[in-house]
Amino acid sequence: MSSLYFNNAFSKQPLPDVVAAMQPYLRDEFENPLTESDGAERIRSMIQKARESVAACIHAKPGEIYFVSSGTEANNWALKGAAWNRGKNHLVISAVEHFSVYQTAEFLRRQGFDLTIIPVDSSGFVDPADLARAVRSSTFLVSVQSASDEIGVIQNAQEIAAVKRRFPDVLFHTDGIQFVCYETLDLRHLPFDLVSLSSNALYGPPGIAALYIREGTRIQPLMHGGMQEEGMRPGYQAPFLVAGFGKAAEISLSRKSRWKERLLDLRQTLYLLFDRLGVPVIGSRQQRLADNILAIADVDGEAILTLLLERGVRASSGSTCTQYAQKESHVLKALGIAPESARGAILFTLGVDQAENEISLLRVTFEEALTHLRRLKP
Amino acid sequence: MSSLYFNNAFSKQPLPDVVAAMQPYLRDEFENPLTESDGAERIRSMIQKARESVAACIHAKPGEIYFVSSGTEANNWALKGAAWNRGKNHLVISAVEHFSVYQTAEFLRRQGFDLTIIPVDSSGFVDPADLARAVRSSTFLVSVQSASDEIGVIQNAQEIAAVKRRFPDVLFHTDGIQFVCYETLDLRHLPFDLVSLSSNALYGPPGIAALYIREGTRIQPLMHGGMQEEGMRPGYQAPFLVAGFGKAAEISLSRKSRWKERLLDLRQTLYLLFDRLGVPVIGSRQQRLADNILAIADVDGEAILTLLLERGVRASSGSTCTQYAQKESHVLKALGIAPESARGAILFTLGVDQAENEISLLRVTFEEALTHLRRLKP
Repeated sequence: MSSLYFNNAFSKQPLPDVVAAMQPYLRDEFENPLTESDGAERIRSMIQKARESVAACIHAKPGEIYFVSSGTEANNWALKGAAWNRGKNHLVISAVEHFSVYQTAEFLRRQGFDLTIIPVDSSGFVDPADLARAVRSSTFLVSVQSASDEIGVIQNAQEIAAVKRRFPDVLFHTDGIQFVCYETLDLRHLPFDLVSLSSNALYGPPGIAALYIREGTRIQPLMHGGMQEEGMRPGYQAPFLVAGFGKAAEISLSRKSRWKERLLDLRQTLYLLFDRLGVPVIGSRQQRLADNILAIADVDGEAILTLLLERGVRASSGSTCTQYAQKESHVLKALGIAPESARGAILFTLGVDQAENEISLLRVTFEEALTHLRRLKP
Repeated sequence: MSSLYFNNAFSKQPLPDVVAAMQPYLRDEFENPLTESDGAERIRSMIQKARESVAACIHAKPGEIYFVSSGTEANNWALKGAAWNRGKNHLVISAVEHFSVYQTAEFLRRQGFDLTIIPVDSSGFVDPADLARAVRSSTFLVSVQSASDEIGVIQNAQEIAAVKRRFPDVLFHTDGIQFVCYETLDLRHLPFDLVSLSSNALYGPPGIAALYIREGTRIQPLMHGGMQEEGMRPGYQAPFLVAGFGKAAEISLSRKSRWKERLLDLRQTLYLLFDRLGVPVIGSRQQRLADNILAIADVDGEAILTLLLERGVRASSGSTCTQYAQKESHVLKALGIAPESARGAILFTLGVDQAENEISLLRVTFEEALTHLRRLKP
């Protein structure tokens, strides 16, 4: 039943080994890791191991990984934590950031900070020259995603890194949440100061994520309280979530190249279908996450989704957040897509255990739905 | 092995029925509740039911419950969310608040807000007259806990409610995290605007908690992003955590009076022992959470803990947060306990499935340890 599921950007089914790794900590191993006992010591060891696994995903040091509750929290912390450092009052983000970066930046603007939003071209790319021009002496942070959850477009990290090298005092943040599952983010060579990661995006449990903070980089905590995470992120973190995240990080690091290759093959068959049907894919086709295909049909996207759902096929019209708010997607708008066209948006995000015949079924079902709706058009 | 565990204020072992309620959502039911499908619809129904169960615990409406990741987040949100409403710049807390209230208030002070910290008497009580005197025209929030995690003392909610009625425009927050497991907080009759709750404190999973926001009360979000929790608390909330919290709330509501009665009986035997050994209990004995006993021995608390741990008995010297920070407890200090005395602090928090013979073992072990250490004294 879950096989015709193409909403993997919004929720991934945790891998069996991940769920198995969580089980001992659901009940048997329940002690607070900040207390003293053999049980607490076992949990501290597990947390350390998980921290190493997550760090290894991005070639970071374990001490640079801070566990948080969601990618949204990681993005909020990066921006607000940098803003609250005081002294400087300008930040820069791209026009295609995830809602949790975009809305946090808008919140900071309402709090009195200056905000520059860098446009993207029609393929979805930030121009590094625009970025460099936006940086001022008062800029404390630049945030440009590694890849979009909505259009899958991968920004050019090397070029953004070159801008960072010109402005070493400005903190550079990247939302790497969707990127790291299938691509490599090597922080030994990329000078980002802050990186958001999420467990569920790596087929781990939801409810846990991480913010990478480069050694020596100082930001303020988002929350205040106890001494967890060196006092930088207080709040009792569930050990079973940490165990699941660690296992997911370990698995994804070892399998990501095979996963990517397979997804690229599956997606190619969808590209061919969309081309044949005359349904344009939005954003760069090449510099794009392997699991993502967003197209704009000439019929109502919601109508397609309804017909697909009748056959058990679950897809989306774009970001769940925007969808739920019934708002126009700021990402599609940034790509220059008019609101009336954006109504035809349809997004499929594939999963690593998807069988070829499931993709065949998707192709058949999509073609039928599109043909049907085109016939109904006046 | 977990039977001689007396750190229940810092981590409770989730009940078997709670863990069973979480299982279906660890892998089988994994869809994002903001998407459209039967699976997502089933998860939305479960979340609604869980919200009703948590609301019922404090006689609130389901729409007044906002799920968050920890009690620390709930406390941070209450204070910062009220502060960011703008216009007023003064807040009041008690001197015995949890670290997550205390440190958040100190952060707001550093951000330019005025902070008044109300003292407590030697039994740990806030004087409502002090509270009323502290409120100014610029006060936006008063935060007084329902009960302390460290000394277990229960504040007089009726008297604090009377102060709220005199200042209806000031938001009143209470950290009800430890209180609600064994006591009744009836928000039909108590006019608190904001209440923090936590799942693990009710024998649910850690990793989830809630902030009650009274209908009509406006505070700012702590995080910004998508439309989860009516846009007030974005971030993808793990369905298995919600399922566990809901089940824990349901169970604790139905069993709390039996639980309390049993714990009072068990604790009475500890009171008798401590009296016989001449070890004073700190804070009110009567207005106190049923699971809590904090005493000050005339020998080093850490030495007692070490001897207990050798016999498998796990207890604490106070709040884990402070302990880990190796700082003096601000709570004991507020009760007028000198630092050299505070070194003798020893805290036991009992659990609802603790057998009588475990308490007997605790009594024997404690008496042996104390007698041994007293003999070593110069």
